[in-house]
Amino acid sequence: MDWFTEKWTPNINFSVKIKEHIYSETTPFQQLEVYDSFDLGRFFTLDGIMMANEKDEFIYHEMIIHTPMSVNPNIKNVLVIGGGDGGSVRELTRYPSIIKIDMVEIDESVVRACQKYFQVTTTGLTDPRVTMKFEDGLAFVKNTKNVYDLIIVDSTDPIGPGEGLFSMEFYQNCHRILSDDGILINQHESPYFDKESQEMKRAHQKIKVLFPVAKVYQAFIPTYPSGHWLFGFASKKYDPVVDFKEAFIETLGYKTKYYNKNIHTGSFALPNYVIEKLKKI
Amino acid sequence: MDWFTEKWTPNINFSVKIKEHIYSETTPFQQLEVYDSFDLGRFFTLDGIMMANEKDEFIYHEMIIHTPMSVNPNIKNVLVIGGGDGGSVRELTRYPSIIKIDMVEIDESVVRACQKYFQVTTTGLTDPRVTMKFEDGLAFVKNTKNVYDLIIVDSTDPIGPGEGLFSMEFYQNCHRILSDDGILINQHESPYFDKESQEMKRAHQKIKVLFPVAKVYQAFIPTYPSGHWLFGFASKKYDPVVDFKEAFIETLGYKTKYYNKNIHTGSFALPNYVIEKLKKI
Repeated sequence: MDWFTEKWTPNINFSVKIKEHIYSETTPFQQLEVYDSFDLGRFFTLDGIMMANEKDEFIYHEMIIHTPMSVNPNIKNVLVIGGGDGGSVRELTRYPSIIKIDMVEIDESVVRACQKYFQVTTTGLTDPRVTMKFEDGLAFVKNTKNVYDLIIVDSTDPIGPGEGLFSMEFYQNCHRILSDDGILINQHESPYFDKESQEMKRAHQKIKVLFPVAKVYQAFIPTYPSGHWLFGFASKKYDPVVDFKEAFIETLGYKTKYYNKNIHTGSFALPNYVIEKLKKI
Repeated sequence: MDWFTEKWTPNINFSVKIKEHIYSETTPFQQLEVYDSFDLGRFFTLDGIMMANEKDEFIYHEMIIHTPMSVNPNIKNVLVIGGGDGGSVRELTRYPSIIKIDMVEIDESVVRACQKYFQVTTTGLTDPRVTMKFEDGLAFVKNTKNVYDLIIVDSTDPIGPGEGLFSMEFYQNCHRILSDDGILINQHESPYFDKESQEMKRAHQKIKVLFPVAKVYQAFIPTYPSGHWLFGFASKKYDPVVDFKEAFIETLGYKTKYYNKNIHTGSFALPNYVIEKLKKI
């Protein structure tokens, strides 16, 4: 195989020249491949969709974690649903203030393959505060008695194993197990191409019914379809811009490569066409 | 031809399925093609690079025009260099306050082909305030005695006919023919892939030597390489955020599809990795 091609739509292809096909596995849930490429370094795919690459994984993982952490620096207990590559956990472990991180990933094979072949994101998984549970996120949030200050839904697209993580039942249970000042962050698809845009609308319609604060923010992620990627910020209490503690990230002693205080506020400034789509069902 | 493919890098391809190859011309300056596609509508290319498509041309053209116009609503005389598709002129003609728009495009064939086959952007070209001059922009700014309040450099990449529009001589002459509160806006390439990132740095190093205010802002343009595209804002007087007249766009009576007051400020919030690259030579 010389090139990996992802169909961003049936009529738009994104193709990456491959240096080496490193690993392939049919897991109980999905097809996993790891490649090395000339321009993006190593990357892995699930069911043919690029999940993360060495060149720009920092953008997604910084934006999904530092945004909520800078709104409520008192977050102690965190639940990560999905996120098998470990990148979200890695960013969370930069905060000494966090006490407990539960990561619920349905597919253990993803974690094990990343620990062997995509180590850039897995460095936080051995942190003593982290507990990995290899089970269905939908069932976990339904059954758990735990309470969390922050839930990160670091899911695949709503097809295959990720589907339940876009359901009303799932969001309702997230709401139930969040503390009174809890924050729910989810990967929120994209506004540009039709398929992701539909999923963006469906997710937002559900979340905004449940949470008094339901905002959407964006980042430039060039290797996801259209490069315009969204996250959802839902909360029982905090507004992500009004309640932003802009000095907090600087107390970390960690130099972010994408996120900064202007990005935080700027990422909630959506284009008019995206605002319009989010209003419609 | 079933697919149009643009090489975003030697190792990354962006491909669009074609419905119809509408027009082809070898102009005195470049190779021009017009296509119809399934997902982006009509689009045209110069030397194999996509310039504009019906689906998202509004993003580029709104961001290159409404940003400076909302900083100095008293702009009367405007020079557009390049911009043969007419999209920048179209946005300028929405302002009754503008008196004169000179468009200097080296390649008349681009304008004529767009007027026939890509009419979404050409509607402003027949406005009586517009004068089209088909000549070299580099020579024009060197020789003109005119003074402008705003110069829009709506150029191709700095290869072929666009090369001179990234030179120190060009920027110096733009500085000379700008009024004391003049603003220079240029398409400023992209921070992500190596080639555009180098050009971004080269342009910024030159402009910041000449102008007391030299900022860079960004937009999500999914069909340009990486989808993360930049514009330069240089001025003798105005800071684009401090001097932003946020209510002005609303007096237009025109509903923008991308630009709004939060986007204006948010677009100047650059990621850390972009800020770092702009600092280096």
